[in-house]
Amino acid sequence: MTDKPAKSNKPQKLKARLPRGLADRGPAEIAATRDMVEKIRLQFERYGFEPVETPAIEYTDALGKFLPDQDRPNEGVFSFQDDDEQWLSLRYDLTAPLARYVAERIGTEHITLPYRSYRFGWVFRNEKPGPGRFRQFMQFDADTVGAPTIAADAEMCMLAADTMEVLGIPRGSYVVKVNNRKVLDGLMEGIGIGGEENAKRRLMVLRAIDKLDRLGVTGVRQLLGSGRWDGGEPGKGDFTAGALLSDEQIGLVLRQLTPADDEPLLGVSGEIWYPDGDTNKPGWDLRNTGLDELQQIESLVATAGYTRDRIRIDQSVVRGLEYYTGPVYEVELTFEISDEKGRPVRFGSVGGGGRYDGLVSRFRGEPTPATGFSIGVSRLQAALTALGKIASKPAPGPVVVTVFDRDRIADYQRMVTNLRNAGIRAELYLGNPKNFGNQMKYADRRGSPCAVIQGGDEKAKGEVQIKDLILGAEIAGLSKERDDYLKKQAEAQFAVKEGELVEAVRKLLARHGIA
Amino acid sequence: MTDKPAKSNKPQKLKARLPRGLADRGPAEIAATRDMVEKIRLQFERYGFEPVETPAIEYTDALGKFLPDQDRPNEGVFSFQDDDEQWLSLRYDLTAPLARYVAERIGTEHITLPYRSYRFGWVFRNEKPGPGRFRQFMQFDADTVGAPTIAADAEMCMLAADTMEVLGIPRGSYVVKVNNRKVLDGLMEGIGIGGEENAKRRLMVLRAIDKLDRLGVTGVRQLLGSGRWDGGEPGKGDFTAGALLSDEQIGLVLRQLTPADDEPLLGVSGEIWYPDGDTNKPGWDLRNTGLDELQQIESLVATAGYTRDRIRIDQSVVRGLEYYTGPVYEVELTFEISDEKGRPVRFGSVGGGGRYDGLVSRFRGEPTPATGFSIGVSRLQAALTALGKIASKPAPGPVVVTVFDRDRIADYQRMVTNLRNAGIRAELYLGNPKNFGNQMKYADRRGSPCAVIQGGDEKAKGEVQIKDLILGAEIAGLSKERDDYLKKQAEAQFAVKEGELVEAVRKLLARHGIA
Repeated sequence: MTDKPAKSNKPQKLKARLPRGLADRGPAEIAATRDMVEKIRLQFERYGFEPVETPAIEYTDALGKFLPDQDRPNEGVFSFQDDDEQWLSLRYDLTAPLARYVAERIGTEHITLPYRSYRFGWVFRNEKPGPGRFRQFMQFDADTVGAPTIAADAEMCMLAADTMEVLGIPRGSYVVKVNNRKVLDGLMEGIGIGGEENAKRRLMVLRAIDKLDRLGVTGVRQLLGSGRWDGGEPGKGDFTAGALLSDEQIGLVLRQLTPADDEPLLGVSGEIWYPDGDTNKPGWDLRNTGLDELQQIESLVATAGYTRDRIRIDQSVVRGLEYYTGPVYEVELTFEISDEKGRPVRFGSVGGGGRYDGLVSRFRGEPTPATGFSIGVSRLQAALTALGKIASKPAPGPVVVTVFDRDRIADYQRMVTNLRNAGIRAELYLGNPKNFGNQMKYADRRGSPCAVIQGGDEKAKGEVQIKDLILGAEIAGLSKERDDYLKKQAEAQFAVKEGELVEAVRKLLARHGIA
Repeated sequence: MTDKPAKSNKPQKLKARLPRGLADRGPAEIAATRDMVEKIRLQFERYGFEPVETPAIEYTDALGKFLPDQDRPNEGVFSFQDDDEQWLSLRYDLTAPLARYVAERIGTEHITLPYRSYRFGWVFRNEKPGPGRFRQFMQFDADTVGAPTIAADAEMCMLAADTMEVLGIPRGSYVVKVNNRKVLDGLMEGIGIGGEENAKRRLMVLRAIDKLDRLGVTGVRQLLGSGRWDGGEPGKGDFTAGALLSDEQIGLVLRQLTPADDEPLLGVSGEIWYPDGDTNKPGWDLRNTGLDELQQIESLVATAGYTRDRIRIDQSVVRGLEYYTGPVYEVELTFEISDEKGRPVRFGSVGGGGRYDGLVSRFRGEPTPATGFSIGVSRLQAALTALGKIASKPAPGPVVVTVFDRDRIADYQRMVTNLRNAGIRAELYLGNPKNFGNQMKYADRRGSPCAVIQGGDEKAKGEVQIKDLILGAEIAGLSKERDDYLKKQAEAQFAVKEGELVEAVRKLLARHGIA
């Protein structure tokens, strides 16, 4: 037996990395978000909404558990225990905290019902991250609490449409699709899959309906029935189990989802429902209430001038969150991008919402109607980038005052201060000044419009050199034979009196159109 | 034995409340923060810093443990385990995540050294909350990584001073105090309390020094020696144990902290140090390097035009975070407010920072100098509010279009849409329209400049009524006898043609100075 080698006492180096599904953001992204958020904010305020903010941490029970597809033990939420052993969670959306906020304040002077508010911020999901799927992302929400009228839902749809347009998404490239949970809930009860014992089956039906866009009627028919093979024929690709509805049940669901053009809200008048014409079937009233509400929304948005290319009823809209009780709406971007395999696909959903009459009343034991709309800011930003609506050119960098003589750093610093006091972005070179070429390379990389240089000769003459880096880059491409090369070269580096530095830099920036 | 009463099946109502130390924020606070953050951002950009953002969640080991006074088991940080059992934490400041960000990117095209960046956002501390002490609060940081020069530290001090002034804090009401950890570390080594075995004692010395402002020389002398009674004499109040330094040791510490006016950086020339004049004592070099750096900062800021009322050396500045290695700076607001017992106290620190040359190198095993400055936005906002620098008058509310006839809600909605399309904040009343008085009360509470009304009579005439609520509130105080009452009453409610609604509202808003 030999001795094991002695363990090294060298401390192990820490690895600099982020957990999966989390991301850092650079200047261009941050500027784009700031611009978007400001436009959305002004639009929401125009609608009479006022800001409110809640913290990122809440009691777990106050948030509730409403996330879709929770197949992980911690159910999609980041949670931890407080000192007093109570469970805390990071918010997973902005709606559940708002419900808590309002419930705490109804009947006080802080809330006037109907209460219209907006807020934006980061939310956190403890989910499996994937391409475009993050564990921290930004939402921007508007909610109206205490308004039972369907006009509140119609307004959310108009807000959604208007917001897309102020962000620069042209008409025809987006659509707000509206549906009503009551229609689907009533329909499912009517075809005999109501009740607690059918909860799982109803979820399968909803998931099938949700795929109408992607799979078409044929695919949804298979998912409602005996199941579907990914590859299009038995044995090809993966198999998804079906909801095992009968042909008659499937027919009724599909008929509701895809009415003919002249019967846009199929069945609201009651003439097509059960083949046997039994209007006393369970679910009948609920479904008809839902259809009636959809007709009201259609009428409200049409009267206000919103055409069907902007807001339209689409009975295949499901929305994932469990707390919705009435109208639901989804904003879809209809232009195409390439998926990971290069195939064209619609960009898809960038926001949505719905009515959640039960969320506030969980705290109060009395009905408190509410409806709200949420924009996925991070996802919408990706869409705007794909549409070329986000400036990719970085803002110009600061003026760099170089360090020629390291004993005179205080003088250089004073030049920087003078430029800043005049409102000009400026900085002193703070790296090792030994290699002057590195200083110029730094200024180039920062995208500086110009560099300021003062060596001993200039100092003696009371002057500074200004090097125009934008012009310098331009003439680098010119032939040195040409007459204008020498002229421009003279323009690209010139001397001014020390006292005229600020004025000379200001002129240079103006010449390049930099504010 | 009797049976216990059967448990009630009534579901227990959830309680709507926030965990301690967390707070909601309303419109006035949010607007004030937005305004502050924008001013700070522009100032930081003028200094050449560029934005970068990191997520709220990091690996626990990447953040490290640098919080002061950690007497709780989880050491001030909110932590939880990921699926793969690795520990994650919420960031407790913005410096540790930046160190991770930079360490990950040095040598790539994403980072040009020296790297100047700024960021703001929420940070989280799992501490005992108290008055003005929250578990979530906002910081705004600037950092320069890769600049060994003391000019980088001097610049942070200037940035701190300039930022106070752009926020409206007048000269004389703030001061940036600068010190150097090397001076204190060297001094303590020099008086014989260096080494691992004296770590606790050094902490007691630093805490005593930190209290110079509040307790004066006498109090600090007691804390450096045998201890101090709160009440001022033995047996009175609580007792704080002392660091048990000898009289000679105490004399050297106090002499360093409170030099006479004509020797502001006591000892840098070397003539006053040990009574025995031994310049080879341990700590001598470190302390002198620290003093030399302080003198450089003094010279740099003075040359750039910053007087001592704005930035000054103060050797009692300690700063809590453990990662500082050189110059440290603190922004103190010097005006007085009342404490909880009504006594006048200085507002105190609203930000600070320092050099942390070891934080990035934890990941890289090579020295990476860095220095940074952090503003406590939430705390500074409280200061600005106390100074009356934050507008307390809320912005005017939206125009409220009332619902007189609930069958005509689509028409009212169209009026709202027309107003909004003209850029005017407007909303439809979404509560129960039955009681018209409630609609007017709602408009009042929202601070609406006017309400729009259309009943059957007006509809027949193709008109709408506009009720000027600002004027209405003014004449409510006038005597009804006076001639101008009737005239103003006529002005306060008037009819216009339906097609002229937008123009009439626009005029009304202009008359009241609302954009």
